[in-house]
Amino acid sequence: QVALTSERYGLRRLPFSRLTRSDLAFFERLMPGRVVTDPEELKPFNVDWLKSVRGCSKLMLKPQTTAEVSQVLRYCYERNLAVNPQGGNTGLVGGSVPVFDEIILSTALMNQIISFDKVSGILVCQAGCILEKLNEYLEQQGFIVPLDLGAKGSCHIGGNVATNAGGLRLLRYGSLRGTVLGLEVVLADGSALDCLASLRKDNTGYDLKQLFIGSEGTLGVITAVSILCPQKPKAVNLAFLGCQSFTKVLETFTTCRAMLGEILSAYEFMDEKCMELVEKHLKLSNPVTGSPFYVLIETSGSNSTHDEEKLNNFLEKSMTSGLVTDGTVATDDKKIKACHPMLWSLRERITEALTHDGYVYKYDLSLPVAKLYELVTDMRARLGQSARNVVGYGHLGDGNLHLNITAESYSHSLLDAIEPFVYEWTARHSGSISAEHGLGFKKKQFIQYSKPNEAILLMQRFKAMLDPKGILNPYKMLPSSR
Amino acid sequence: QVALTSERYGLRRLPFSRLTRSDLAFFERLMPGRVVTDPEELKPFNVDWLKSVRGCSKLMLKPQTTAEVSQVLRYCYERNLAVNPQGGNTGLVGGSVPVFDEIILSTALMNQIISFDKVSGILVCQAGCILEKLNEYLEQQGFIVPLDLGAKGSCHIGGNVATNAGGLRLLRYGSLRGTVLGLEVVLADGSALDCLASLRKDNTGYDLKQLFIGSEGTLGVITAVSILCPQKPKAVNLAFLGCQSFTKVLETFTTCRAMLGEILSAYEFMDEKCMELVEKHLKLSNPVTGSPFYVLIETSGSNSTHDEEKLNNFLEKSMTSGLVTDGTVATDDKKIKACHPMLWSLRERITEALTHDGYVYKYDLSLPVAKLYELVTDMRARLGQSARNVVGYGHLGDGNLHLNITAESYSHSLLDAIEPFVYEWTARHSGSISAEHGLGFKKKQFIQYSKPNEAILLMQRFKAMLDPKGILNPYKMLPSSR
Repeated sequence: QVALTSERYGLRRLPFSRLTRSDLAFFERLMPGRVVTDPEELKPFNVDWLKSVRGCSKLMLKPQTTAEVSQVLRYCYERNLAVNPQGGNTGLVGGSVPVFDEIILSTALMNQIISFDKVSGILVCQAGCILEKLNEYLEQQGFIVPLDLGAKGSCHIGGNVATNAGGLRLLRYGSLRGTVLGLEVVLADGSALDCLASLRKDNTGYDLKQLFIGSEGTLGVITAVSILCPQKPKAVNLAFLGCQSFTKVLETFTTCRAMLGEILSAYEFMDEKCMELVEKHLKLSNPVTGSPFYVLIETSGSNSTHDEEKLNNFLEKSMTSGLVTDGTVATDDKKIKACHPMLWSLRERITEALTHDGYVYKYDLSLPVAKLYELVTDMRARLGQSARNVVGYGHLGDGNLHLNITAESYSHSLLDAIEPFVYEWTARHSGSISAEHGLGFKKKQFIQYSKPNEAILLMQRFKAMLDPKGILNPYKMLPSSR
Repeated sequence: QVALTSERYGLRRLPFSRLTRSDLAFFERLMPGRVVTDPEELKPFNVDWLKSVRGCSKLMLKPQTTAEVSQVLRYCYERNLAVNPQGGNTGLVGGSVPVFDEIILSTALMNQIISFDKVSGILVCQAGCILEKLNEYLEQQGFIVPLDLGAKGSCHIGGNVATNAGGLRLLRYGSLRGTVLGLEVVLADGSALDCLASLRKDNTGYDLKQLFIGSEGTLGVITAVSILCPQKPKAVNLAFLGCQSFTKVLETFTTCRAMLGEILSAYEFMDEKCMELVEKHLKLSNPVTGSPFYVLIETSGSNSTHDEEKLNNFLEKSMTSGLVTDGTVATDDKKIKACHPMLWSLRERITEALTHDGYVYKYDLSLPVAKLYELVTDMRARLGQSARNVVGYGHLGDGNLHLNITAESYSHSLLDAIEPFVYEWTARHSGSISAEHGLGFKKKQFIQYSKPNEAILLMQRFKAMLDPKGILNPYKMLPSSR
């Protein structure tokens, strides 16, 4: 049984109203059959995927339309009932589950594709569409979602946008701030804000939707998304390589960026500890062994002959110059392409392997690329025997390190050895204490390591303006201004 | 002599304070020798590049540092003096010059590069750096600015960001919302907001900088910019093609996108009227003639052999299938590369050619690509002999039409024939009445054609929150909420 968040952290519930019978009756009338109150049924929605935080909501609502979301919020706003918007509940910082008894507002049934235009590549869909399903749909039309991440099988596009998810393709297709063209959002008071434009360019007034991208459900509930989708690449190649030092990982990146240029679509790295855990806990086998570091490179292009030639030139150069000591390649050839999912899972399933290794202390940091791995080494030296494993992996091309520390169970003293050291180290190198996971519940008190006071104050003013009663995802993202 | 904006439009000055001797003395003490009050010297800064609007500012200040901008605004805020932030004054909607006697706050002397990191490609610089100069600096390091536009020789990067400029490379490198990583902004009350992060990913709180991107100087003065720059492509090829109909322009685009894929960096179109004007007024010669439409295609890639092969395959296909009837190609070969500037100027200098054709009514619209040119045809039919020329060109790949109408001189009746027809037409097709130029002074009263009322109200609330006295670029962008 996961500890109740409020108890573990000794939190006081804010003075929101408590749910009454008449509230339940209202919701049951509004959306009959889509009101969940059964404690057993509610369980998985009260606990995060990492099983690290737990709330005690007694009610989950499953609207199907924006109008329903609007009615729910209007009612909650009037009644001063707190609401926890929830997508696929795959967040890693405790932002997607209630802290106390917030009503869970699930986007699970808002899963309709509204339109797709093959000329422009613009997709408009409801917020609850599952990322992988969207991608399957788009692939049939010759397109892809400009976003890919390990949780794709269950995360919702609305949640992706609300947390400004990064993932594996950011290096190539850029951040959601550039690819999301429009949003429909319901504000705390229930009013709907239609910024669902399907235009690549629109400079008419402030870009309001940007405020909701990455706001983690604290400013409004995203109900629909318009997103620019790139064409499905005709050829995709993978290379999984071993490097003898982190310096060589960096040099390989520079070489690779120069030689693969516009077809480079991912440059991921992981240390040998990651591979050990993936082998041990998930029984995956690593085709390349004996290196302290591994690199996964993906190319996506429009001409398989050209792409293979570029990749081969790069491989030859990095092998002969000793940057890479061993490796395997899976080209676009049908037979070999079958290996793609296997190679990708070595990288994508690290998070999962870690959860099998004990309690996980997770850090998702942006750092200058050259300094990135020093933090892992420093942390390993600092913690010594008190941690089970200290591993580093991540999106090297984006300067994004995932630092993970495992131990038999949660312990205050280990946490004290890690924090605030990890945040101070990051701040000293002008990094970000959350590159892509967001702040949610678990990181909110550390925002000042990455943002100046004036910025935090301004954020609190935005929050107060858009959600004066603070009913949307309370206890999350920002230090309370009260 | 250009008519005073306030007189032409019959505007009332808002009750800001008027400049006194003691104000001037304060500024002269703060920045000796960088306070301009000479009417002759002020003239070009009171009139926009198009010579379509004119203010009557009596003072221009030229700060060199953020601290100075801060002191200026703190003073103006206290004294209730209105301020017009100005970069290169290349805006096309009257946003960059005063309407009445606003103090011009010029970024001209804020032209220092702060840092450039060759590993990450991240440039940090002051707001007044000229776009072309930045690009020259970056090219020496093997990088480019992810933005290019006709005004590059005089526009400032701060102004580009403040107006969310689009331009010629957006198709390839995406919008500034994705590539701008950080901003330093001075707010109306003089407080500085440091969001000048140099990180590709940072999810710690709301992305405040986004609010200032495209806010046209109405929410704060951008003093420094951090921007992610792509590597300089090793090979750049151009093709200038003639098409017999707009349908063929569209089909050529689809073919080109599929066959050039990741190396396509621009797809511009222009009608024969544009070419006539460029030939007539600027004496440029078009190497391809006799077509009603022309297309300029640019590829940027990392391997010249591959790129030429892709381009040749595409050209062969579009010629043999009759999509393209005539054309010229300038490849990356040294001798032929000399033709690049000539071909580009056919497209880039259309704006300039139009100014020589008489008074210009300018429209910058986002429309569904397939419908884009219908508006030009409709407008031409509607205006008949009352217009001198009705021309269409633009960034087809982005769905962005530049519709321009010329006449001997400004006339109310011609304007009435064009507006609101052009805005209604655009709204009916769910387009945007300003794709990249912004709203500035000239388009602000038409925002409701592209944004719902709730969005406009919310924008006004943001404005009131950040600039409660409304001193920053008044009379611009938003319909007044007073």
